[in-house]
Amino acid sequence: MKLHLLLTGNELMSGNTVDSNSARIAQQLAYCGLRVARKVTVGDDLDLLVNEIKQASEASDILIVNGGLGPTVDDLTPQALALAAGVQLQEHPEASEHVKNWCERRGAACNAANMKQAMLPAGTEIVANPVGSAVGFSLELNGCLVICTPGVPSELTAMLKQAITPLLQARFPGVASPSILRLKIFGIGESSLQQRVNDALPDWPKEVDLGFRAGAPLLEIKLTINDASHEKLRGQCEQQLYELFGDHIIGNDDITLAESVIDLLKKADAKLTTAESCTGGLIASLITEVAGASQVFEAGVVSYSNAIKHSMLDVAETDLLEYGAVSETVVKQMAQGALAIANADGINTDYAIAVSGVAGPDGGSDDKPVGTAWIAWGHKDNIKTRQLYLPVERKLFQTMIAALALDLIRRELLGLKAASRYFVSNN
Amino acid sequence: MKLHLLLTGNELMSGNTVDSNSARIAQQLAYCGLRVARKVTVGDDLDLLVNEIKQASEASDILIVNGGLGPTVDDLTPQALALAAGVQLQEHPEASEHVKNWCERRGAACNAANMKQAMLPAGTEIVANPVGSAVGFSLELNGCLVICTPGVPSELTAMLKQAITPLLQARFPGVASPSILRLKIFGIGESSLQQRVNDALPDWPKEVDLGFRAGAPLLEIKLTINDASHEKLRGQCEQQLYELFGDHIIGNDDITLAESVIDLLKKADAKLTTAESCTGGLIASLITEVAGASQVFEAGVVSYSNAIKHSMLDVAETDLLEYGAVSETVVKQMAQGALAIANADGINTDYAIAVSGVAGPDGGSDDKPVGTAWIAWGHKDNIKTRQLYLPVERKLFQTMIAALALDLIRRELLGLKAASRYFVSNN
Repeated sequence: MKLHLLLTGNELMSGNTVDSNSARIAQQLAYCGLRVARKVTVGDDLDLLVNEIKQASEASDILIVNGGLGPTVDDLTPQALALAAGVQLQEHPEASEHVKNWCERRGAACNAANMKQAMLPAGTEIVANPVGSAVGFSLELNGCLVICTPGVPSELTAMLKQAITPLLQARFPGVASPSILRLKIFGIGESSLQQRVNDALPDWPKEVDLGFRAGAPLLEIKLTINDASHEKLRGQCEQQLYELFGDHIIGNDDITLAESVIDLLKKADAKLTTAESCTGGLIASLITEVAGASQVFEAGVVSYSNAIKHSMLDVAETDLLEYGAVSETVVKQMAQGALAIANADGINTDYAIAVSGVAGPDGGSDDKPVGTAWIAWGHKDNIKTRQLYLPVERKLFQTMIAALALDLIRRELLGLKAASRYFVSNN
Repeated sequence: MKLHLLLTGNELMSGNTVDSNSARIAQQLAYCGLRVARKVTVGDDLDLLVNEIKQASEASDILIVNGGLGPTVDDLTPQALALAAGVQLQEHPEASEHVKNWCERRGAACNAANMKQAMLPAGTEIVANPVGSAVGFSLELNGCLVICTPGVPSELTAMLKQAITPLLQARFPGVASPSILRLKIFGIGESSLQQRVNDALPDWPKEVDLGFRAGAPLLEIKLTINDASHEKLRGQCEQQLYELFGDHIIGNDDITLAESVIDLLKKADAKLTTAESCTGGLIASLITEVAGASQVFEAGVVSYSNAIKHSMLDVAETDLLEYGAVSETVVKQMAQGALAIANADGINTDYAIAVSGVAGPDGGSDDKPVGTAWIAWGHKDNIKTRQLYLPVERKLFQTMIAALALDLIRRELLGLKAASRYFVSNN
């Protein structure tokens, strides 16, 4: 079953609007067992639209057209479909009633622009729009089911769930939904990830699609079984991936490192505190972005200058002078200082993260170039430290160092050893 | 000059990733006077890619291919271009050096997957990647200049500005660059923005394109003059926009609120400190994301619990009990407590931001529903406060409240009044 998308809108071509609709369509139609094979985007140009509708309808079984159903003159989809199909535009009674009701509910008279939305290609069937003025519609063309949908995201979302999914399930009852497993990975470079699979699993079954997705800080491995008769391979493949990547697997679907750490802290009935220099509040922010973080996190400190490291966290001035802010002894004292703060007034906080590094672009030296960082982490009775070197652009450096710190505390909470090296092939 | 885009990646077809790259490309190439006429997206499928490259190269003068340059087996762009052009893949000396240097800087040995990135179609020229391992490359095919670019957004962005723009400008010197002005706006709703322009400027000249782009926290107004002979209209239109939106305009291009605040602090030779509850470190993180933030920011506090608000910031326990953490008196004391910390040991900090709110989804009450926030801000001698209500999803709430706090301190530093209302049409 070949599914194509055609998106239209000048704003999609100029870059003024990022297209999130095609992701919406793809994610929803996956539940019908349908995968998007190809999508084409063009501006509001009648000739281009007619041409793309003709081509796509010849090359696919289902074509979803998105956008161009509005009331203004640059909304051209009904006209383009009529031309591609060689039929007339005519007032569709159901559509006309929908538009009139829609205006009436808003206490407004229908104007010519509104009524333009009821002019549809002859022979189309209505696809209900539960929330907006523009009805959707479908037409058979060159053996392809063409479904036209509105560009307004909230209207599209409602139509996908309430009208298009039941329509496609009724129309193509034989299509089975695929079985999908998504695993989030941290601490291995993208190239090493694939290399490891190739080396370790040369006999990976063809029936199980394996996809890799780069991301910062997490990578994703996605396992897809399209044919339900091979579903029994899933458990075996999943196990092989767990054997291969073990403690680099953070969890399933859209889990974040902060979510994983918060879960583990809740299970341990423990609390965490942070003292941040080069990450400047990012670690605290990632933690508190998660609903329920208050159960495990009460206090964090952004100690950006040396004076504040001393005055707030009680880092020894002599150590700051002798070893510098980016050093093992300073980062360890930062963690201890944060624990002192987060254990005031009867609060009991066991775990700490502290980071200090050279984010750049300035501030590097021969001794400590841009990209150097020290992390301290662990239980208050056993603070560990590690030096890292990650010479990348400032924002990515902060993202990765924050993630690394969270991963180190995740491993600590799991009773695992820290990864021996991060982001290189031999870890 | 016809410009087509071809995007590749299974994650773009499955809906797991929203394609923001094509908007990036379109926006940057507009500066070269180039507009995207058509874009096609397909998964990581060799046959499809070869076919699309052939078709698009026949139908256009420039084809930008995005994605598929990574080290994994599902990165197929070099192979597809080689097949489309009927040439061999071969190790490209420049690319090979780039990859080796990249690995070396990270202290890692190059593996086979890394070196795959140096295997390029015969006859290609390198397009430098200033930040990542995957080099870009270009090849002439069917009279069309095909340029292959990496899918990682930060790499693409750097390459567009530093390599592709100069390449295209040198290659197509006759193409007139349009005159573009992008203004970043804060504190006005998207629909109000457009309505205001329509109402206030009915005679806006046709020669000056006006585009709007939604975003959180900043909106963008984009003014484009394609024909250089109308350039004289620019000053007048810019002035009209400044008259209309005045102090809602943060600045040009990609400026952020944090950058604006840091600039103003530098000019005032002043420092800022933060005390965050509901934003949990996000404000500090936005500030320290900017290079050079250390000149104006030394200390920030994440005081997530009531106990910590008392012990770290000296907020009165009686006030916490009587008024609750989300209250005017508490947020004011938080700002004062942060100033006390940031003025220790000879540091002089004049300005503070403090926020406390109900980010949800839990924690709301009839009195203080989810979405309620109090902000305190200002100079140490004159701390102001304001209550806000923004009942949106947790992460967006945090994003907007952090932005609001930064905007309030921006206005303070500019000597402007705080906006009377935020995000409604009559402010």
